[in-house]
Amino acid sequence: MPDTFARDLRDYDSLCRAFRAGDDTPSAALENYIEAIEASEDTVQAFAHLDLASARKAAAQSTERYKSGQPLSSIDGLVIGVKDIIETADMPTGMNNDIFTGHMARADAACVRAVREGGAVVIGKTVTTEFAIGRSGPTVNPHDVERTPGGSSSGSAAGVAAGMFALGFGTQTQGSVIRPASFNGVVGYKPTLNAMSTDGIHPLSRSHDHLGMLACCIDTAWRTARWISEQAPGQDGDGLGGPADGRLTAVAPARIAVARTRGFEDLDAESAQAFDDTLARLRDAGVEVVEPADDPLLAGLITRLDRIVDISIRMVAFDMRWPFRGYMKIDAEALGPRIHELMKLSEEVTLDEYREIRAAREDMRKAATELGRGYDAFVLPAASGPAPKGFTWTGARTMLLYWSFLGFPCFSLPVMRSDGMPFGLQFAGVGGGDFHLAQRAKWTLETLKKA
Amino acid sequence: MPDTFARDLRDYDSLCRAFRAGDDTPSAALENYIEAIEASEDTVQAFAHLDLASARKAAAQSTERYKSGQPLSSIDGLVIGVKDIIETADMPTGMNNDIFTGHMARADAACVRAVREGGAVVIGKTVTTEFAIGRSGPTVNPHDVERTPGGSSSGSAAGVAAGMFALGFGTQTQGSVIRPASFNGVVGYKPTLNAMSTDGIHPLSRSHDHLGMLACCIDTAWRTARWISEQAPGQDGDGLGGPADGRLTAVAPARIAVARTRGFEDLDAESAQAFDDTLARLRDAGVEVVEPADDPLLAGLITRLDRIVDISIRMVAFDMRWPFRGYMKIDAEALGPRIHELMKLSEEVTLDEYREIRAAREDMRKAATELGRGYDAFVLPAASGPAPKGFTWTGARTMLLYWSFLGFPCFSLPVMRSDGMPFGLQFAGVGGGDFHLAQRAKWTLETLKKA
Repeated sequence: MPDTFARDLRDYDSLCRAFRAGDDTPSAALENYIEAIEASEDTVQAFAHLDLASARKAAAQSTERYKSGQPLSSIDGLVIGVKDIIETADMPTGMNNDIFTGHMARADAACVRAVREGGAVVIGKTVTTEFAIGRSGPTVNPHDVERTPGGSSSGSAAGVAAGMFALGFGTQTQGSVIRPASFNGVVGYKPTLNAMSTDGIHPLSRSHDHLGMLACCIDTAWRTARWISEQAPGQDGDGLGGPADGRLTAVAPARIAVARTRGFEDLDAESAQAFDDTLARLRDAGVEVVEPADDPLLAGLITRLDRIVDISIRMVAFDMRWPFRGYMKIDAEALGPRIHELMKLSEEVTLDEYREIRAAREDMRKAATELGRGYDAFVLPAASGPAPKGFTWTGARTMLLYWSFLGFPCFSLPVMRSDGMPFGLQFAGVGGGDFHLAQRAKWTLETLKKA
Repeated sequence: MPDTFARDLRDYDSLCRAFRAGDDTPSAALENYIEAIEASEDTVQAFAHLDLASARKAAAQSTERYKSGQPLSSIDGLVIGVKDIIETADMPTGMNNDIFTGHMARADAACVRAVREGGAVVIGKTVTTEFAIGRSGPTVNPHDVERTPGGSSSGSAAGVAAGMFALGFGTQTQGSVIRPASFNGVVGYKPTLNAMSTDGIHPLSRSHDHLGMLACCIDTAWRTARWISEQAPGQDGDGLGGPADGRLTAVAPARIAVARTRGFEDLDAESAQAFDDTLARLRDAGVEVVEPADDPLLAGLITRLDRIVDISIRMVAFDMRWPFRGYMKIDAEALGPRIHELMKLSEEVTLDEYREIRAAREDMRKAATELGRGYDAFVLPAASGPAPKGFTWTGARTMLLYWSFLGFPCFSLPVMRSDGMPFGLQFAGVGGGDFHLAQRAKWTLETLKKA
């Protein structure tokens, strides 16, 4: 048995060039992912359901399209794992809860439909924590099998890290894309709230739920999200910007702000040092890195945002009343302790309080957008440290709450290490500023990856 | 067999006072509705599924609560029919399409959960046209069994008219609450878009779908909607306003605007006369009734709104891509011709066009809100005439499109007759102005009902 099940990530973008040139085919690429699954899945357990036969069929069709020079889109042939709270018509969607065991949806979720229409290959359903918020699933971290892969998009992150597919769909209500991306050393991207449809995704909180990407590389994360945002836009979504083919050019950020929030209190010394070293490297590369101590307006915003740690979960619990109160009525015992706890909290939150929080969020969004005019990005760690040992706890959410609550875009860039494990840099922007942010995230990733 | 299956509508508000006074009980009231079902359902066919046993159980519990002086809410004991595209955990939700025959949801829709938590009695699922947009169901109009009850909320409207329940849940994407309310002589109320959650309701168009009420009386429609808007608010919903107990006081409108749109071209002579007579009666009652000819700003707005007739369906078709493209893939033959037609149209609509329509809607909303400051309501017919003969066609939608597209509140008030049939007055307001509108609608209904 190898020490690690993590693999060097195969860049789909270069694969895709090879498909077009006739030097490689989606079918051959798929076999490569399947080989990783055969080598690692027994241990990693990224999948809740695997359908190799239909993946092979879809890859063969994609191969034919490239042969005839007619791929359907820039994600044709891309092999995708779909988080098991996202509905698929041809595979069960189990939500990691007995209430939904064997549940067959009558249609693909909007995002799944969109990528399939673009020629992507859905290889299976990936393990989620219970309803993306409760009990953990069986997945382990490919970088260290004694550690959690993080949650709730556990299987999508671990599967990418283990080389089982190029991109995994995740969802983030409070931290479920960015945190597992950080723990597994893959690129995470959570676009602006509502940029992509969440139709067909089991809801936790309409005010917080984002579809997100866990990917082998930033270009693939961007290109896939951009495709979905056009084919299956969220209600009132304004798209992600940038060229129609999803091309992403690296652009150096001129000035970035360090979002030194309350979350930093949880950070261990090694992880804090890794973060500070990263800031130093960015300064060396010519980026102006501004600390709250240097900008009173930034300091003021950070202080304001720290209220999020207390209020976000109250809004989520209120939203969870539907459908979870219904599940409580049908089969309360099937639901784990965390969901019981949140249902209890939901009784406490009045509609007046909910509306006050919503209004406060609007004010915070305005303030962050205003301040964001002077910065290309905000940076903070993408988790409170590396993946914890053990499996019951999927890690602290504090660092993730801020941009989840705001509904603003952010990336986790796999550019740091701590305790011998991957540790992500959270690279965050303002609502609707996805393309601007993605260009700078690409430059930052490339610059910091150079040894 | 009686000539008509329509009954004098029992006012739930006075019933409720009798419950509190101990002069009547929810159980006895339920038996009265059941008696109507036994007398009429074989012909009217309002139900897709009926569950008298569980309704009797819920009514008995409600009866106990009134006995102990502790009703759960101002809608405790209210007997409700639920349109069969709205999910219920204890009854199948068939969408009037084979794809969903026997479909058992795992939780009640948010609105169903909310009314049940308030003590309401769900008596069954009511017939809808296919997915609320396609082929008609078997329901007939209780006022004339040779005529359509209208759609898509066919069974909810006919059931109220036939005295089978006090209130029916309907949904309106383009006209499906207000039109059947008009055809069946019941009160219809479609609140501001997103005032109530549509979670658990099969989607047609996220940009157009409203939950609405078909009711025996305006107080019951208002009280129920207000309860839901607090217990299961839509995302970013701001509530409906007014006192917390849902009390509604009649207030005379000072000034109303006639929305003399393109829709009037379809109106038959008798119906046009009935509408003009109604305006005359309102003038006699002291209301200033303003025609577009008298107010150039009103005329300008009406001209602008007439674009809605062409663009609304394009936005709906685009939204329908999910989940209907998925159904087309699974079982295209199960879908009726109208849905095939709309799927074809959906291919034509680009995202750019969709965004342009959305922006145009925002402009129209602003203009209507601005003009609405000078008026207490807009009035127009609630349909293009009385219910047509036959069952394949559920009637023109033109009159309904305007306020559906705007997402602004409107009522259908059963105050006119045409061709011996009920014919509703559409009483419409501006976004968020629901309480102001409801008070004036109540006065208008009471005033016009006086012979």
